[in-house]
Amino acid sequence: MFDELHEECGVFGAYRIENASSITYYGLHSLQHRGQEASGMAVCDGKEIHVQKGKGLTVDVFRKDKLNQLEGDLAIGHVRYSTAGGQENENIQPIVSKGHLGSLAVAHNGQIVNEKELRLELENQGAIFQGTSDSEVLLHLIQKEKGTLLEKVIKTARRLEGAFSFLVLDEDSIYAVRDRHGLRPLSYAAFKDGYVISSETCAFEVMGIYDSTDLKPGEVVEFKKGLVKKYQYTQDITHHMCAMEYIYFARPDSVVEGINVHAFRKKTGAVLAKKDVGLEADIVIGVPDSSLSAAIGYAEASGIPLETGLYKNRYVGRTFIQPTQAMRDRGVRMKLSPVTSVVKGKSVVMIDDSIVRGTTSRRIVRLLKEAGAKAVHVRIASPVITHPCFYGVDTSTKEELIGAHMNKDEIEKYIEADSLQYMEVEELKQVAKEIGLCVACFNGDYCTPLYSYQKVLEK
Amino acid sequence: MFDELHEECGVFGAYRIENASSITYYGLHSLQHRGQEASGMAVCDGKEIHVQKGKGLTVDVFRKDKLNQLEGDLAIGHVRYSTAGGQENENIQPIVSKGHLGSLAVAHNGQIVNEKELRLELENQGAIFQGTSDSEVLLHLIQKEKGTLLEKVIKTARRLEGAFSFLVLDEDSIYAVRDRHGLRPLSYAAFKDGYVISSETCAFEVMGIYDSTDLKPGEVVEFKKGLVKKYQYTQDITHHMCAMEYIYFARPDSVVEGINVHAFRKKTGAVLAKKDVGLEADIVIGVPDSSLSAAIGYAEASGIPLETGLYKNRYVGRTFIQPTQAMRDRGVRMKLSPVTSVVKGKSVVMIDDSIVRGTTSRRIVRLLKEAGAKAVHVRIASPVITHPCFYGVDTSTKEELIGAHMNKDEIEKYIEADSLQYMEVEELKQVAKEIGLCVACFNGDYCTPLYSYQKVLEK
Amino acid sequence: MFDELHEECGVFGAYRIENASSITYYGLHSLQHRGQEASGMAVCDGKEIHVQKGKGLTVDVFRKDKLNQLEGDLAIGHVRYSTAGGQENENIQPIVSKGHLGSLAVAHNGQIVNEKELRLELENQGAIFQGTSDSEVLLHLIQKEKGTLLEKVIKTARRLEGAFSFLVLDEDSIYAVRDRHGLRPLSYAAFKDGYVISSETCAFEVMGIYDSTDLKPGEVVEFKKGLVKKYQYTQDITHHMCAMEYIYFARPDSVVEGINVHAFRKKTGAVLAKKDVGLEADIVIGVPDSSLSAAIGYAEASGIPLETGLYKNRYVGRTFIQPTQAMRDRGVRMKLSPVTSVVKGKSVVMIDDSIVRGTTSRRIVRLLKEAGAKAVHVRIASPVITHPCFYGVDTSTKEELIGAHMNKDEIEKYIEADSLQYMEVEELKQVAKEIGLCVACFNGDYCTPLYSYQKVLEK
Amino acid sequence: MFDELHEECGVFGAYRIENASSITYYGLHSLQHRGQEASGMAVCDGKEIHVQKGKGLTVDVFRKDKLNQLEGDLAIGHVRYSTAGGQENENIQPIVSKGHLGSLAVAHNGQIVNEKELRLELENQGAIFQGTSDSEVLLHLIQKEKGTLLEKVIKTARRLEGAFSFLVLDEDSIYAVRDRHGLRPLSYAAFKDGYVISSETCAFEVMGIYDSTDLKPGEVVEFKKGLVKKYQYTQDITHHMCAMEYIYFARPDSVVEGINVHAFRKKTGAVLAKKDVGLEADIVIGVPDSSLSAAIGYAEASGIPLETGLYKNRYVGRTFIQPTQAMRDRGVRMKLSPVTSVVKGKSVVMIDDSIVRGTTSRRIVRLLKEAGAKAVHVRIASPVITHPCFYGVDTSTKEELIGAHMNKDEIEKYIEADSLQYMEVEELKQVAKEIGLCVACFNGDYCTPLYSYQKVLEK
Repeated sequence: MFDELHEECGVFGAYRIENASSITYYGLHSLQHRGQEASGMAVCDGKEIHVQKGKGLTVDVFRKDKLNQLEGDLAIGHVRYSTAGGQENENIQPIVSKGHLGSLAVAHNGQIVNEKELRLELENQGAIFQGTSDSEVLLHLIQKEKGTLLEKVIKTARRLEGAFSFLVLDEDSIYAVRDRHGLRPLSYAAFKDGYVISSETCAFEVMGIYDSTDLKPGEVVEFKKGLVKKYQYTQDITHHMCAMEYIYFARPDSVVEGINVHAFRKKTGAVLAKKDVGLEADIVIGVPDSSLSAAIGYAEASGIPLETGLYKNRYVGRTFIQPTQAMRDRGVRMKLSPVTSVVKGKSVVMIDDSIVRGTTSRRIVRLLKEAGAKAVHVRIASPVITHPCFYGVDTSTKEELIGAHMNKDEIEKYIEADSLQYMEVEELKQVAKEIGLCVACFNGDYCTPLYSYQKVLEK
Repeated sequence: MFDELHEECGVFGAYRIENASSITYYGLHSLQHRGQEASGMAVCDGKEIHVQKGKGLTVDVFRKDKLNQLEGDLAIGHVRYSTAGGQENENIQPIVSKGHLGSLAVAHNGQIVNEKELRLELENQGAIFQGTSDSEVLLHLIQKEKGTLLEKVIKTARRLEGAFSFLVLDEDSIYAVRDRHGLRPLSYAAFKDGYVISSETCAFEVMGIYDSTDLKPGEVVEFKKGLVKKYQYTQDITHHMCAMEYIYFARPDSVVEGINVHAFRKKTGAVLAKKDVGLEADIVIGVPDSSLSAAIGYAEASGIPLETGLYKNRYVGRTFIQPTQAMRDRGVRMKLSPVTSVVKGKSVVMIDDSIVRGTTSRRIVRLLKEAGAKAVHVRIASPVITHPCFYGVDTSTKEELIGAHMNKDEIEKYIEADSLQYMEVEELKQVAKEIGLCVACFNGDYCTPLYSYQKVLEK
Repeated sequence: MFDELHEECGVFGAYRIENASSITYYGLHSLQHRGQEASGMAVCDGKEIHVQKGKGLTVDVFRKDKLNQLEGDLAIGHVRYSTAGGQENENIQPIVSKGHLGSLAVAHNGQIVNEKELRLELENQGAIFQGTSDSEVLLHLIQKEKGTLLEKVIKTARRLEGAFSFLVLDEDSIYAVRDRHGLRPLSYAAFKDGYVISSETCAFEVMGIYDSTDLKPGEVVEFKKGLVKKYQYTQDITHHMCAMEYIYFARPDSVVEGINVHAFRKKTGAVLAKKDVGLEADIVIGVPDSSLSAAIGYAEASGIPLETGLYKNRYVGRTFIQPTQAMRDRGVRMKLSPVTSVVKGKSVVMIDDSIVRGTTSRRIVRLLKEAGAKAVHVRIASPVITHPCFYGVDTSTKEELIGAHMNKDEIEKYIEADSLQYMEVEELKQVAKEIGLCVACFNGDYCTPLYSYQKVLEK
Repeated sequence: MFDELHEECGVFGAYRIENASSITYYGLHSLQHRGQEASGMAVCDGKEIHVQKGKGLTVDVFRKDKLNQLEGDLAIGHVRYSTAGGQENENIQPIVSKGHLGSLAVAHNGQIVNEKELRLELENQGAIFQGTSDSEVLLHLIQKEKGTLLEKVIKTARRLEGAFSFLVLDEDSIYAVRDRHGLRPLSYAAFKDGYVISSETCAFEVMGIYDSTDLKPGEVVEFKKGLVKKYQYTQDITHHMCAMEYIYFARPDSVVEGINVHAFRKKTGAVLAKKDVGLEADIVIGVPDSSLSAAIGYAEASGIPLETGLYKNRYVGRTFIQPTQAMRDRGVRMKLSPVTSVVKGKSVVMIDDSIVRGTTSRRIVRLLKEAGAKAVHVRIASPVITHPCFYGVDTSTKEELIGAHMNKDEIEKYIEADSLQYMEVEELKQVAKEIGLCVACFNGDYCTPLYSYQKVLEK
């Protein structure tokens, strides 16, 4: 699934940390793999909320001079991959509202499935929306509800359906909220005299923090007056951590719901290997970067030697000119190239984490064959994707999913592989049997009602 | 040697290729690992030489509109890492001279050791230099010599001592030149109706070219009137391919002097493993990215399982803000972080390609211990660096080389490793016994006189 | 008042004009003198509203590629000078709301004096504000009101107090609205098959339109279904065109309420001259650019020859480095310099349009004396500014107004003039006796209640 | 000649001034009217020469951080308008040569007519040229000559033919050189403990310096060891100050060869007026900005009232999008617009400084008529341009000069004027009778041989 799937966001928060903007900068940098299109930060000095945001990587949006202007010891930040049509500046988070009664900032990771319904309801009450992001809906809901900010946040969380992990900042507190299914990760940890909050634990480790707590499904955590207080805003919870976080999105050094991502991936490789008893192959290679862990697992379990058969060019810059058709036809491959001396004359097991449209897999298989591979056995470290995701991954239509239209044999033929294997959904669940996974994209079992998205499915 | 050593350049040329600028763009992109500070291209349409160059990655310097302005079917290009003090625009290559008698462009990879002497001689004859790059000296020498361009290039090559692989472009021909020791790589290949020339073969493979020819030491290759002609400008040749090209610089998918770089590295890992019989360790990890091949080799030879113990953050951007001392003291690690669940409680063999100053190695050892590693056995896939390089690698003073001042035991202690092993120089030579290597940085055997650089050594 | 006072905005609209974005680009460029900090445009293709906006001049914000993306034949645009504290991107206009019921864009010139009260009322009803601009309040009000867009706009206009000329765009119509006192100008004209609307008529003339209609105070003009319809939303109207528009802001080639700006200024010069009978002076000079018309008028009426005694440097760029104190003390003057050979040994009448803080006037007088002027008689082509403006000019505190604290003799002494004359308020009114002027900044007669701004006055 | 003619350069130097870069910044800013395409500075701290240069206005090329890096108390700077084809970075001045024997920087204003011959001679001796500017030739010549820097500079100056005013900087001295005809201005003045040198005196006045000395034709001034020494490098001198400096290029507040530019222009206006006795006209207007002084002079002498009939839009920015043909046909005029109320129904005398191609003049006449002018009498404050300039003004071909192909009556008809008058060459000379003017563009009397440019003339 090289370069094909995108998560939409990552969030980071810092409560009572001196120069909160600085620690948030490092935190967002560690979450950059969750979104590279835009970065933003809202920082509070106890009186006012200052915001800086822009398109680009965290390290480009926040230069030293900008960072120094963001004074205060409370901060929330956001990195984002924007889905088609939503690339406008209005949608760069955190979204901030400035009022006589105080200011609020919201940073959100996930997708609210009843967002359209809520938006319509708010509009009918006279609300105006300047952008199209879920966060703006969150801000409106919080503002409308009555009571303390805690009460407003809880009432808002109860109105939402879907996947969400969001942070709310006002002048003296931060609230962290996770949906009742636990679809997106969110953790916090003590740091110095305060706390840090992050979509993934890898951000903690760069700060030397090795101990952290996951928010539970349906939980609000309040950081206020130097204290942490937890509130279970609903008892109606399930456990549906997005399987794709393990398979593709999260950084291998992150621990999600107690399970290390790299370890998870290694196990999927081992599962695939066990199904391949008797397969004659010379080497195992992984598609960089996300499939390397699974390849190690496969090699270890199968005894077939691991190799580096594909090289990924890191220097992508900002404005990559795509090869012309003429170049493409000659097989110009700017991002991924085969290590010819490794694959030449070899029967290759190629591990990839998933297949979305199939075109990229086919291109890689062809690359390897052109470089002399005798056979290419494609092994996918996850089940066939058959359904779109409505919880924050950008596969929103069935049409583009090869697994929705072809069976395994057809896909094998399409991608020109000598053989093709996937994992079964049950096998995947077994890899993380201590926790509950959302596997809706593999079997259509959505854990929430889908509201207007239902139509997308019915098409 | 994570982030510590830098090669200075890569060159690419295209002769009689339609839209030469386009193919050169892809070629330079493939050579980007040899230099990320600046990129440039000189393209000729048969009449005039057009130049575009600037600071930054190839993909950023050449936007579509700029590339389209560079019409012609002859081109030479350059990527560059600038050493301290030489970051000025005047030094971005190709360097072009425009004259009534015709224009010339030069792109150069390497380091000319008698450059200061030649420069002084030229100055005394009234030459002026606008920058400090070797290429400007080359241009002057070529211009001064009498005869055809071929004759001028040959006479110039004979005057040079040191490491060089350079390209010369005029209105209707390209000349490729390699020094008489073969210190830096340079190859060419037929492509479509013409030829491409490159510092490394990986650039050919992205174009679907699997067959190429290395220039021999002391060779000039002329591309003119649709023909390739080879000239041996001197018989006084040796074979001293820079060992560091295999150990660190070159891309694993390149083939240098007939040896695949990845394969070379795997073998160094195996050599290290054989010296470690009896070592009790749980896992083998490599420092990304350059040491992964050696780690695979070590794991395979030793039977100790390979693991992914370190994660490298790819999102570095343009203006990375360094952590403050306070952050550094807490161990903030923005570029490299340990995968805690992998290394915790484990006895780790950590493969690195080399040690330069020792500070980075120490930081990584500490990272791993902090993350819970029981023991860290550092294995270096090359010998101790004891001497500066004067042939194009930026270790120009003895002072900064830990190997010039400490013995192995002292280094082991300094970097806080539980044990430390290097390769012997002889072992390294055995890995590529079919060819001759320059190992001057490991033993001080420089294959050329050093001229003014002698003083650096004597200090 | 060289470089001291700033108007906040200009608006331009295009209804049923092919490539509305193109004509709006030229329109905004002509209004650039009303605001140079940011430019924006909302364009509708009948279905969707596309927005582009950014900091900087119109010609820099809209490059050709951006402009081409803005398709449609309806557009509204805005140029803006931002007052202190309000430089954030959220405030760049037009402000757009995107809803399921349709989208709206608003571009506004003026200042709503009951904005704080309205904002508080809206917040209490659950509205959120992302910025601090009046326009966001307008959008909320329009959205809240019931009925057709025309009805919503009219109801909104009735709720506002202060100075405003604003445009509202939806998918198929544009509404232009002017406050009931006529404080800010707004005109429209037929163009090709549609209409253009502009803060000033100079924008029409660049398009070759010499005939236009001013909106009346308290009028809404609807551009819909190809027709223009006018509605008088209130009968409670007065005539209070901002005198400063004539004195300083508007372009000399604009016609405001039937009076050409240049002609107005010439008359003020003549009035000053008539009060100076008997004054012995050698030359008359105007402070560029705004006082040149008044200087011509003075010279003509007095018979004293007009001269060019001050030169204004046009090349200001984006990031002007201010002279250090040391340089300032030596009198470095980067923007304005005296023409020594003109003023040396002369008794000079220096015409300026107004005095705000007095510091600039003093600096200019000193410049002229240093350059050898024998005497400098300062003549101000308007009365003493004694009161802050709450209608869109950025003199919002009494403290900074020299005229609020010193009488004429004190000011004369402070600015080191040999003599000083102002116009009387009555004289100013006589210059435009056919229309009603707002002269609140000269005499404190505000034509509206001031709401919370009252406190500023009482301090 | 609105927007039609361009001078190529201005130079500024600072000798023994603390923070020389800062004063040079202000100096170049004052000379910006002489060139807006690129700015550069070379600064010496007594040891090394630091250079910064780039495309754009001085205020944009030198941001605070860049300026601070340029330490030292010697500096030379340059602003430049680049002629077609020479817009490459290589040509941005100062041009610097870095050598073991010391570094040199050169900044040059003018045009060397034997440049091609010198360049060829140097190339034949083995010199290489990276750009196409005259300055690179100067550097080569200086480097070639033997002796002290003073001797080298003098020998170089003697080899040059044409118009030049240039500065040479080495580690501890500055040399200012002016050609033997005095074609381009150059002056110096004492400032603080050192000296400043400038193309125009307006740069001195912004620093509060009212006393300066012009270099004489054929003079070299040496600033060294704290002293100023003058050397007459040739006795073969003439006096041919470029008339266009007075007519168009120089700032009105500059004093060139003892004559104030504004005063010169006023006199030309008066000369025109005297020739118009009996002309019935209502108003006199000048084409901004360069013709305003002449218009004042005409008005004063004729008694016809001066008016502001044309408005120039100042906000041009970096990337102005030209109106489409459709817009142009409707008469869209983005840069210059008529003040309709001023010109309507009037018989107008329109003063312009010159006519180059005639197209701009015709466009302005049409503008005025469209705005209602009854008659437009064009009066040109200089003679008919009949010959190209080879001394630094960018009218290098006869073809584009309307005056080379049409007589006065034909031009009058072409530009659609009701009447047209020029000055006679003799009248122009009378205006500055105390000095000698170069009027070659008006009568073809070139004061130097023309070398290869002769061909341009003969065509």
